[in-house]
Amino acid sequence: MQLAPDPQGLIRLDEDDCWRFLSRYSIGRVSIVHFSTPMIFPVNYVLDGRTVVFRTAPGTKLATATLERSAAFEVDDAYPELETGASVMATGHLEIVTDREERAHLESLGLRAWATGDRDHFVRFVPNHISGRRIPVHSLADALGTDAG
Amino acid sequence: MQLAPDPQGLIRLDEDDCWRFLSRYSIGRVSIVHFSTPMIFPVNYVLDGRTVVFRTAPGTKLATATLERSAAFEVDDAYPELETGASVMATGHLEIVTDREERAHLESLGLRAWATGDRDHFVRFVPNHISGRRIPVHSLADALGTDAG
Repeated sequence: MQLAPDPQGLIRLDEDDCWRFLSRYSIGRVSIVHFSTPMIFPVNYVLDGRTVVFRTAPGTKLATATLERSAAFEVDDAYPELETGASVMATGHLEIVTDREERAHLESLGLRAWATGDRDHFVRFVPNHISGRRIPVHSLADALGTDAG
Repeated sequence: MQLAPDPQGLIRLDEDDCWRFLSRYSIGRVSIVHFSTPMIFPVNYVLDGRTVVFRTAPGTKLATATLERSAAFEVDDAYPELETGASVMATGHLEIVTDREERAHLESLGLRAWATGDRDHFVRFVPNHISGRRIPVHSLADALGTDAG
């Protein structure tokens, strides 16, 4: 992790930091392009190596997204009281997992579908680029809105 | 709000429900398409009527996104203990706000930029379609993992 904020006031996370961040959460968002329009879908995910796995229902836009050229995956956290937060965003592509052994492996990862409908499609997001950034916590005086001068 | 889940196990929110949901939160995600690749950026937002306003720094991909044809905006919440959550997603387009009076109005909405860098660009997301869905809370027996039979 870079120690000083960049000109936009953000601390950039390196690739290992990004994956560590993703490993701490289970809700992310996938974006795909559907007839030239970007769409965002929240997903309940697990990591499998340096890929992201989630489940979706057959027939959904996400299930057919492997026809699209590219996708993005994002996870963020926020601490409004401190006006800070971090986010990681990866771009790559989606693959529907059809191989029986691979599906058995993914089922062993404990990924549950919350909705009761059919969520039989395992989808793997394979990133080709990942980046992350964190807003540094302001000085305590800034955070409390007091004048430190 | 529809009362019974659809075949995917989701309860659809109507348009008023969607805006009520957006009004309760302040962190959302914007997706744009950048050279055919979707990208997702978390934003700190406020509503202005039935539009979404956020700030970004000049020179960022979001600040130049008005050149793109379309964008998406998404907010979700999740209650992992109950395996439930809701999300609202809108598709539309982004506009950089340059009009002086309009900027003064937006500044009065109390939208703060968390990062210390320049966030001088006010961006307005204007939706043309909005939809939302909620995963119904399972029966208490389901939620507790007990056998109700």
